[in-house]
Amino acid sequence: MIGIIMGSDSDLPIMQEAIDILESFDIAIEVDIVSAHRTPEKLVEYSKNAHLRGIKVIIAGAGGAAHLPGMVASMSPLPVIGVPVKSRNSIDGWDSVLSILQMPGGVPVATVALDGAKNAGILAAQIIGTSDKCVLDKIITYKEGLKLKVEQAAKRIQNS
Amino acid sequence: MIGIIMGSDSDLPIMQEAIDILESFDIAIEVDIVSAHRTPEKLVEYSKNAHLRGIKVIIAGAGGAAHLPGMVASMSPLPVIGVPVKSRNSIDGWDSVLSILQMPGGVPVATVALDGAKNAGILAAQIIGTSDKCVLDKIITYKEGLKLKVEQAAKRIQNS
Amino acid sequence: MIGIIMGSDSDLPIMQEAIDILESFDIAIEVDIVSAHRTPEKLVEYSKNAHLRGIKVIIAGAGGAAHLPGMVASMSPLPVIGVPVKSRNSIDGWDSVLSILQMPGGVPVATVALDGAKNAGILAAQIIGTSDKCVLDKIITYKEGLKLKVEQAAKRIQNS
Amino acid sequence: MIGIIMGSDSDLPIMQEAIDILESFDIAIEVDIVSAHRTPEKLVEYSKNAHLRGIKVIIAGAGGAAHLPGMVASMSPLPVIGVPVKSRNSIDGWDSVLSILQMPGGVPVATVALDGAKNAGILAAQIIGTSDKCVLDKIITYKEGLKLKVEQAAKRIQNS
Amino acid sequence: MIGIIMGSDSDLPIMQEAIDILESFDIAIEVDIVSAHRTPEKLVEYSKNAHLRGIKVIIAGAGGAAHLPGMVASMSPLPVIGVPVKSRNSIDGWDSVLSILQMPGGVPVATVALDGAKNAGILAAQIIGTSDKCVLDKIITYKEGLKLKVEQAAKRIQNS
Amino acid sequence: MIGIIMGSDSDLPIMQEAIDILESFDIAIEVDIVSAHRTPEKLVEYSKNAHLRGIKVIIAGAGGAAHLPGMVASMSPLPVIGVPVKSRNSIDGWDSVLSILQMPGGVPVATVALDGAKNAGILAAQIIGTSDKCVLDKIITYKEGLKLKVEQAAKRIQNS
Amino acid sequence: MIGIIMGSDSDLPIMQEAIDILESFDIAIEVDIVSAHRTPEKLVEYSKNAHLRGIKVIIAGAGGAAHLPGMVASMSPLPVIGVPVKSRNSIDGWDSVLSILQMPGGVPVATVALDGAKNAGILAAQIIGTSDKCVLDKIITYKEGLKLKVEQAAKRIQNS
Amino acid sequence: MIGIIMGSDSDLPIMQEAIDILESFDIAIEVDIVSAHRTPEKLVEYSKNAHLRGIKVIIAGAGGAAHLPGMVASMSPLPVIGVPVKSRNSIDGWDSVLSILQMPGGVPVATVALDGAKNAGILAAQIIGTSDKCVLDKIITYKEGLKLKVEQAAKRIQNS
Repeated sequence: MIGIIMGSDSDLPIMQEAIDILESFDIAIEVDIVSAHRTPEKLVEYSKNAHLRGIKVIIAGAGGAAHLPGMVASMSPLPVIGVPVKSRNSIDGWDSVLSILQMPGGVPVATVALDGAKNAGILAAQIIGTSDKCVLDKIITYKEGLKLKVEQAAKRIQNS
Repeated sequence: MIGIIMGSDSDLPIMQEAIDILESFDIAIEVDIVSAHRTPEKLVEYSKNAHLRGIKVIIAGAGGAAHLPGMVASMSPLPVIGVPVKSRNSIDGWDSVLSILQMPGGVPVATVALDGAKNAGILAAQIIGTSDKCVLDKIITYKEGLKLKVEQAAKRIQNS
Repeated sequence: MIGIIMGSDSDLPIMQEAIDILESFDIAIEVDIVSAHRTPEKLVEYSKNAHLRGIKVIIAGAGGAAHLPGMVASMSPLPVIGVPVKSRNSIDGWDSVLSILQMPGGVPVATVALDGAKNAGILAAQIIGTSDKCVLDKIITYKEGLKLKVEQAAKRIQNS
Repeated sequence: MIGIIMGSDSDLPIMQEAIDILESFDIAIEVDIVSAHRTPEKLVEYSKNAHLRGIKVIIAGAGGAAHLPGMVASMSPLPVIGVPVKSRNSIDGWDSVLSILQMPGGVPVATVALDGAKNAGILAAQIIGTSDKCVLDKIITYKEGLKLKVEQAAKRIQNS
Repeated sequence: MIGIIMGSDSDLPIMQEAIDILESFDIAIEVDIVSAHRTPEKLVEYSKNAHLRGIKVIIAGAGGAAHLPGMVASMSPLPVIGVPVKSRNSIDGWDSVLSILQMPGGVPVATVALDGAKNAGILAAQIIGTSDKCVLDKIITYKEGLKLKVEQAAKRIQNS
Repeated sequence: MIGIIMGSDSDLPIMQEAIDILESFDIAIEVDIVSAHRTPEKLVEYSKNAHLRGIKVIIAGAGGAAHLPGMVASMSPLPVIGVPVKSRNSIDGWDSVLSILQMPGGVPVATVALDGAKNAGILAAQIIGTSDKCVLDKIITYKEGLKLKVEQAAKRIQNS
Repeated sequence: MIGIIMGSDSDLPIMQEAIDILESFDIAIEVDIVSAHRTPEKLVEYSKNAHLRGIKVIIAGAGGAAHLPGMVASMSPLPVIGVPVKSRNSIDGWDSVLSILQMPGGVPVATVALDGAKNAGILAAQIIGTSDKCVLDKIITYKEGLKLKVEQAAKRIQNS
Repeated sequence: MIGIIMGSDSDLPIMQEAIDILESFDIAIEVDIVSAHRTPEKLVEYSKNAHLRGIKVIIAGAGGAAHLPGMVASMSPLPVIGVPVKSRNSIDGWDSVLSILQMPGGVPVATVALDGAKNAGILAAQIIGTSDKCVLDKIITYKEGLKLKVEQAAKRIQNS
């Protein structure tokens, strides 16, 4: 199971893309709001217990001074994928990107692109795929699909 | 009492300036290392209890994806002063500045300049000075001293 | 009493959040426009006398090359909270952030996030709370409220 | 097995930290130089076959316009961890960070901090740990070790 | 013949300016979609054979972590002109600019301005003009036309 | 007479280039240290009286959150030239550049390049030259000298 | 007389503010379009002759890779004021700011804020004011007016 | 013949790499110093006549507010390759990169990486190669050489 958390419900429109892609891969997910700054106790409890509850990978999205992914990573042995969200009042997204990416030695966060929740979902699936042949095959099929869409667009452009 | 904490002992050379200036004002301090990412339990305990132990202001210094000041602020009702430290591997200090400054609504961190621990100490003293006339007077005297040093430098330059 | 000043009335929509949050805490405020660049005499007079008039903390908001918070801090022994405002013609807010944050040693400004006037208000209240148990309790209650809102949002998201 | 590749042997001093940490976890590794720009055929062959040769996770480090991690990710179904390396002539590392992080939808790269090869190694181990209880336990033990080091440093600082 | 390729059909509105200017110079073009990340095999085949099929210059446009121009340059002996496209989710265009510009020694990409497809077309024509007197003359005429337009605008402004 | 002021004597090595070039033009100068943040009274007095004391142009250099040039400009009717100084703890000079350049409408500062004190001196001379034919001629001669130096370097390079 | 030039008529809406403020000071102006890149001969002729035609100060506005102000400065002994214009396709204005500000030693451009044409006009007037008491007095009166507007806004805010 | 010019002899250590690589390809070169800001007449004459003197491609290197490549491009119908040089006082190279890259529509400069003179030389050779089979073959051979060096480094790393 993949745990998907975010710092605020205002992050949901972005994070929905992670939910959708994982559901399309038939991978079980659990969605919650955990705010590093407003529900720190829930943060601690979530982070310490996620791996005991059967969660394999955590996807955490947050904006601004985005501490959620890094704080979860500090308390969980699971791989944590961080999604920098470009929130209102953000300084062009640099704040969330750097707050998530530049973790100190010992506590990695697997950071994806600004607002890149879809890629966070695919990355989570790839991690599951390292031990689940069926998911690995879905990833291979998904990437074939990307190729097909480009080829169709190429044909349209050549015929226009 | 002012609590001074930092994420790593490698931050001490920078944070020493906060210690020195507060000692010069005869304000009691307590220094500790609290790593948001490596000692999260200590972080929680420190943050929740600081105001119960008589601490009035917390100064927290950290580098890179610097979560310590913001996480302390999320769990303490005290004013938290954040010092962005330009650590090794930092992207020119932007990472620590933005990780500390860009806190979400509801959880302020009083951020000072990059490596500005001295100013963090003075700011802490000014906060104490809002209810302690003696400290307020020391601040006034300190600022007079700044003026004198500039005037002496001005004289040297005019005579050269 | 908290003094709230801004460089221009165009900053009022942002600075209103500081006014609102302090009023919700029943903390007395005084609002004024003081332009570092257009009313420098008022700046001097305001800064030198604020602490004599019973003001405990000054919140100063300004945009662009934002000199108001730093100049007030240079002439007042009070803690000064700076709010970088993202004004028209701003270079993405970097100008006001850096003009307020990067103060030289000796003259701190407690800087909050870009357009972070609400946090400036909360920080001012926290400073008052260092010597006023009643305000400290309001801060604790306010932070509990933040938690409740997140928990309610979490429930909505889990039920959807 | 973890595949560790880099664009040039000048990246080895940085990438060595990934090698060292994985060896300390007793996880098998394979190290190679694969240049996206100078050995594109090897890049294709490596990327397409890695998962068939038993590799579970790929760590790819590169500097400047760093295309290696993204190109490997485009041709492999495995999770790819990208390490932005601050090379000579780099514009402060921004080029490698953005070239690796900002991947388009469909092709994620798990990006770690600038020169963050150690964290890349830990993240690879965490991914292995999602299906290998023994490795998961090593991660838990490793994180306990981080805590101990901080506690010892805290004691030194309190006694000084 | 000039080969014009782009990473996605969403880049077409920008890249159309290269098509238009080259058609206005009566220079033969061939337009295609080649995605470095989604059709890597096509990328290899296109890059290796372009010069064998009579293409003289390649114009490649892409956004975000833009690897297309650099990867084509790594496999083709032809001059490759890179057009950084400011895509959705881009961090203000910095990602595509730096991913295309900062190529390592040995593999140049001739980079033009952000969204500068028109200039990419003119540059391609100038390259053809180095061995085709007729095209060189068209460039000279085109530049005269730029001058005329400015002179007419200058007259309008002086008369207003 | 040209007034040359700086925020700290640590700025003198940079500002010396303005002094030297103006002395080479035989233009009278007056050098002083005026700190916006540490000697605000002197700042006010200097700014209000400079034009009454016969000063024609003010050159003001400062680093970090550099408020000196803008504050002088707010209180003086004279042209003020600002020199952003890259001080210790500066964030790569961006702080002083933006604090000086991005002045609000109504209060210009003529900003020169980072550490560009020599150009500040030349610009001051050019301003004097708008009403002093002799200084204008010196500027013309100076620019001829620049050309000669380049021509000599060009000869050396062609002969090597 | 003040010469106001711009690289394109698309810069006119911004540059109009320089025209308006100088007209309000009754200072003679001359407006023209001179493109460094499209009318280089006109650029040379304009720059070399401006001071012979009675122009005292040149204001030059341009966007993107903005070479107009610097090139005029290289060929004229007059003070040149550069206005960075935030054009379409600009990278947030950084390109025009840096292309105008960072001039090499020997060739200053007096740079004002992004889109700061109004301040360019005021600065030109201040330069004229160094030798024209009447204009100096207008500047003093203008600055008084700025103060009055702020005071009126302050009253409105205090009464609301 | 390739014309190689630079704004100052201080750029020669960087630009030497373009000279060296072109000499290794046996392509005739001509090296000169042409300063946009200090020898504007030479700039005009060089730019207008280069194509009449048999030059096919111009490589222009400059630092800071780097106007040389763009100004040459404005007056020559030849392809102009711009090399941003990281000069002393540069703001991390951003100034020269943006001044060269962000040219307006109609006047392209083929920009290479910061200090990327070697790639400028290779790109010039590739342009010659579009009409000179012998040079095209040298490029193909050169790229094979790049591959060999990587393969040898790969072997060393695998054996260590």
